[in-house]
Amino acid sequence: MELSKRAVAIPPSPIRKLLPLELKAREAGKHIYKLNIGQPDIETPQAFFQALREELPPVLAYGPSQGIAPFRNAVSEYYQKLGIPFSPEEIMITTGGSEAIFFAFLAIANPGDEIIVFEPYYTNYFGFAVYADVNLVPCTLKAENGFHLPPAEQIESLITEKTKAIICCSPNNPTGTVFTREEVGVLAGIAKKHDLYVVSDEVYREFAYDGEMPTSIMAFEEVWDRAIVIDSISKRFSACGARIGNLATKNPQVYQAVLRFGQARLCPATAEQMGAVSLYKLGDDYYASVRDEYMKRRDVIFRELENIPGVVCHMPEGAFYIMVKLPIDNADHFAEWLLTDFSHEGETVMVAPGAGFYATKGMGEDEIRLAYVLEADQCKRATQLLKMAVEQYLARS
Amino acid sequence: MELSKRAVAIPPSPIRKLLPLELKAREAGKHIYKLNIGQPDIETPQAFFQALREELPPVLAYGPSQGIAPFRNAVSEYYQKLGIPFSPEEIMITTGGSEAIFFAFLAIANPGDEIIVFEPYYTNYFGFAVYADVNLVPCTLKAENGFHLPPAEQIESLITEKTKAIICCSPNNPTGTVFTREEVGVLAGIAKKHDLYVVSDEVYREFAYDGEMPTSIMAFEEVWDRAIVIDSISKRFSACGARIGNLATKNPQVYQAVLRFGQARLCPATAEQMGAVSLYKLGDDYYASVRDEYMKRRDVIFRELENIPGVVCHMPEGAFYIMVKLPIDNADHFAEWLLTDFSHEGETVMVAPGAGFYATKGMGEDEIRLAYVLEADQCKRATQLLKMAVEQYLARS
Repeated sequence: MELSKRAVAIPPSPIRKLLPLELKAREAGKHIYKLNIGQPDIETPQAFFQALREELPPVLAYGPSQGIAPFRNAVSEYYQKLGIPFSPEEIMITTGGSEAIFFAFLAIANPGDEIIVFEPYYTNYFGFAVYADVNLVPCTLKAENGFHLPPAEQIESLITEKTKAIICCSPNNPTGTVFTREEVGVLAGIAKKHDLYVVSDEVYREFAYDGEMPTSIMAFEEVWDRAIVIDSISKRFSACGARIGNLATKNPQVYQAVLRFGQARLCPATAEQMGAVSLYKLGDDYYASVRDEYMKRRDVIFRELENIPGVVCHMPEGAFYIMVKLPIDNADHFAEWLLTDFSHEGETVMVAPGAGFYATKGMGEDEIRLAYVLEADQCKRATQLLKMAVEQYLARS
Repeated sequence: MELSKRAVAIPPSPIRKLLPLELKAREAGKHIYKLNIGQPDIETPQAFFQALREELPPVLAYGPSQGIAPFRNAVSEYYQKLGIPFSPEEIMITTGGSEAIFFAFLAIANPGDEIIVFEPYYTNYFGFAVYADVNLVPCTLKAENGFHLPPAEQIESLITEKTKAIICCSPNNPTGTVFTREEVGVLAGIAKKHDLYVVSDEVYREFAYDGEMPTSIMAFEEVWDRAIVIDSISKRFSACGARIGNLATKNPQVYQAVLRFGQARLCPATAEQMGAVSLYKLGDDYYASVRDEYMKRRDVIFRELENIPGVVCHMPEGAFYIMVKLPIDNADHFAEWLLTDFSHEGETVMVAPGAGFYATKGMGEDEIRLAYVLEADQCKRATQLLKMAVEQYLARS
């Protein structure tokens, strides 16, 4: 009676494994600035709660496997406004962006197949790859050029006969990088040339700070047949706990396969879809106000990080993350130490160690990811704490 | 650019694939008695909606991957009352019973491994087996003995070196059979003897009509280390759309593996867990009233089925399903015909064809599953329609 190989292969979440130490620090009375997880402090819009109060039917029944029609219509309208012509019939509502990624992997890859991913990457891609018994093949990006793409040849050199797809995530978690139109075009070109799918994770679409909408993979009509877009309400509307996402594709075979996978799990949560319908009615003012707030936080946190001697980081162009190279050699230990040993005036800061965002062994060990999901003042204080902590950590021995 | 083998292997839901015909029949003005899907008409208790109205926090944030503490506590108390001593730390909240089954498969089986299942079985087991690339090995039960277990040797003859687990589902979907204490004991004994896990799907626990609580696999302490219990609020509280289930196990390795799988998908829906806490406060009166209602329906539907010449069925002991052998040779076609061709006074009935509940090719082709999820009067009328339909169908040619 053994565990499966997958059960052994799947690592504890590098973001969540610090939880026990966090609890202890809290019990000891420390205040912790949590920059370790992409959980925004911004309130979920009231429209969501209002729908839950007023619109639920007396029997909370199974909905359609592809999601309730009003919500698929709302998501379709949202896409159309952005110039991305997904019809409701091309949109599959999923249990978070998480399930959308998993279903995409299931639909396009066999056990043992390969999917190219740029590292550092959203750690849960690895979890879903384990679910689906698929191998993620990393293409390493560099802090020094702001985690932008390497030359196409370098990406193409990773393609084997087992390669089925490239994952594009822009604006990026964990780097905050927004790929330029040219970069997304390069990925589209590689996918077409080598007959690959592109899984395009666009959940941070509204979080870009140069005033332009980030380029969607759907800007390239020549890859509409091989593009699978992943989306979610979690970050856009600060509704992470709702677990409502979607997968959209113009490839009818992929759509039908994903629908069949979806039928096995019956449906996404009904009530939270009804709440989500109302979120998509909020419009541009809402997005603008949230974007402005995050931009302010980014500017504050970046300015403070520049004050830490020996730190390497790049002004993030989007999302609400920044990868930071520290002048220490074991960020895993440092992240623990912040909770167990460090405090200043009863306060400390929680960060996500970088290694968990890399597939290549040894990469990211001197990096951390910060999520600027607290108000600007708190971000400032947290980064100042980080500065003190780095100095104190280096002076330890 | 091909679809994966799994995308090809996963069949459309046999229950949901009649949907387009249903829509057409509806558009044509037919009233349809839906006995094809286990979607109860009973109202979700008000306590659930009240929690959603009153208790949600301003930020609908990620919860713990294993579920929120108040809900795990509530589920633990529920189990303890039943004499099943699961602590909150042994309970993992999942996105429906669906995810609990999938995580169980992932944790205990490698791609290509085998899991023994009694057929007819809950069709979605097959979907999750495809997700996990695991083979379900069917042990066929017979309508003639009420879908009870065959001799142990027959079950044991299916065990190979690739067998990792046996699925026990009692009260059963789709047969309505409740395994006796002896039968569950036989399965426990086989599991222990052959070093297998038992995945015990007990979501219909309260739906048993002989006045006794069905025997849980946890009644057998000798298999506590190898038992994985699947549970859900969907049927118990008529909250199918909430997508809240749980997996419980006293095997710490399995629990930790499932927790790691759960971390990849972050968490189950937060709001609906808060609603579910209140459901577990309802107590025995609630269960008794629901049970009485279903027993009334069962009695009505069974009495009417007995009036159909050539029908073979067995009084179901639990759940709210019955497998019915009809005097026709293609229940798939019959189920379609009910929607496309048949009506009486503008009404027809929708049933689930039996073949989809079997892994063995050719089995169940003359069977249907009925879910008695409508009020007794409607069940009666629906079954009378079925009688007319069978007669008319047989007289067609």
